[in-house]
Amino acid sequence: MQLIDGKAVAAQIKLEIAAEVVQIKARGGKAPHLAAILVGHDGGSETYVANKVRTCSEIGFQSTLIRYEADVTESALLEKIVELNRDASVDGFIVQLPLPKHISEQKVIEAIDYRKDVDGFHPVNVGRMAIGLPCYLSATPAGILELLKRYRIETSGKHCVVLGRSNIVGKPVASLMMQKTYPGDCTVTVCHSHTKDIKSHCLQADIVISALGAPRFLTADMVKEGAVVIDVGTTRVPSEHTKSGFKLSGDVCFDEVAPKCSFITPVPGGVGPMTIVSLMNNTLLAAKKSVYP
Amino acid sequence: MQLIDGKAVAAQIKLEIAAEVVQIKARGGKAPHLAAILVGHDGGSETYVANKVRTCSEIGFQSTLIRYEADVTESALLEKIVELNRDASVDGFIVQLPLPKHISEQKVIEAIDYRKDVDGFHPVNVGRMAIGLPCYLSATPAGILELLKRYRIETSGKHCVVLGRSNIVGKPVASLMMQKTYPGDCTVTVCHSHTKDIKSHCLQADIVISALGAPRFLTADMVKEGAVVIDVGTTRVPSEHTKSGFKLSGDVCFDEVAPKCSFITPVPGGVGPMTIVSLMNNTLLAAKKSVYP
Repeated sequence: MQLIDGKAVAAQIKLEIAAEVVQIKARGGKAPHLAAILVGHDGGSETYVANKVRTCSEIGFQSTLIRYEADVTESALLEKIVELNRDASVDGFIVQLPLPKHISEQKVIEAIDYRKDVDGFHPVNVGRMAIGLPCYLSATPAGILELLKRYRIETSGKHCVVLGRSNIVGKPVASLMMQKTYPGDCTVTVCHSHTKDIKSHCLQADIVISALGAPRFLTADMVKEGAVVIDVGTTRVPSEHTKSGFKLSGDVCFDEVAPKCSFITPVPGGVGPMTIVSLMNNTLLAAKKSVYP
Repeated sequence: MQLIDGKAVAAQIKLEIAAEVVQIKARGGKAPHLAAILVGHDGGSETYVANKVRTCSEIGFQSTLIRYEADVTESALLEKIVELNRDASVDGFIVQLPLPKHISEQKVIEAIDYRKDVDGFHPVNVGRMAIGLPCYLSATPAGILELLKRYRIETSGKHCVVLGRSNIVGKPVASLMMQKTYPGDCTVTVCHSHTKDIKSHCLQADIVISALGAPRFLTADMVKEGAVVIDVGTTRVPSEHTKSGFKLSGDVCFDEVAPKCSFITPVPGGVGPMTIVSLMNNTLLAAKKSVYP
């Protein structure tokens, strides 16, 4: 069994991006610039955005954090998005989700110029991904593919079972794993809440990608000997062993599943650290105008 | 075994659309208007476009056929698209594919205003479909879903195996069959040229949708008793029994597979007749501005 060390891979990629930024600046170019809009004071969102801003500074990106109180109007937020769309100094930007209920997330996502949509949530980027055209891939699916690539895990002709059909993980990662490329060329099965006998599907999988958010759902009896297991679950569960009284739990019963696997990601330290790195990579692509001229 | 009569369903839907057009006109509205661009004189394309124009006239739509010789420049074609995008009298339009090799099909598809893209090939429509937002569905996947609906075939929790991963059938129909709706809520497996042991996947399917274009690929030993089989294949094969010397062959060995099925589509007369009807339905939606305001 080989552990997929997302933390180490993420650190390595940050070094690679930082080196490229140094080169860009040496050639007289400007640092890639990511802007983030944060609405309200949700604890999770505060942490995520703070990590993104810190990562920007670590790798030599410029970042701008724009804060609104939770009672900001939808139209004020949409006006700011129009402004950022037009601001040539900003290469890419994100609006941290979730948003307060009086604001339509879908309207906000679609207001972002797809050429600056480094979260990859705009329908143009989702559609181009499905068709197999260059685009900004959303962070978690892109991070998963990068891990498969860095560990040279064979995917062609393998049976990949995806658990979950969310718009931000399940559906896009399924779409990517079936494309005619590497990583890809998998036979792909998507399971979800309506699936009957999920165990029998999992048992056939060469690669399981679990994005259910169901702590310790995947047990050893559901996994084939030699499988690759990618755990996207990160649910806060009570714990007696941490100061906070909580710990992060993946979808996988790691202790019992790991011995059966050829490769497995831990939680934390697996897919999680890759998501911010994917966002940084999209921002670099935006600055270089590699995807859209 | 029940035969899914696509020809009869298509005829019924045409009557329904025609009735709605009569109502629109009675209220002083204008007939939905579909424009089609045909480049060159490919036999298949000529037939398809002629059928679309004839169907428009049958159901009370206005249609405009715009022809170019095969040596038309890409820029001339793109200019015409810009003109049609701006022409308020045209509700929707299509560019018949394939195009001559010197013209980029992708560039042409993306030049069409997605609000008039009644073929549903523009990345915005593909992306919105994947996310589950209102959009123009491409014709063949939409036709398949409509058949499932009209025959009240249960899909929730069923295992749907899609053979083929093309951008116009396999991928979009897989995407639709996994959405949280009816028809949908299926566990979906996508098989293709890289799939190992395709038979074992097919044998598990409650619903098989075959879009390989491989004549008589699906044999009786590959299908579970009671399965629903949707045959999207239409390949011209030599025949001694027709005047033309050719006949259309589906992906399915109909004679031997049909007795095992709960429902099956024939070729011809199954999915085929539904595709033009889907295009007409999208054009009606465009005229009513039901999808995009």
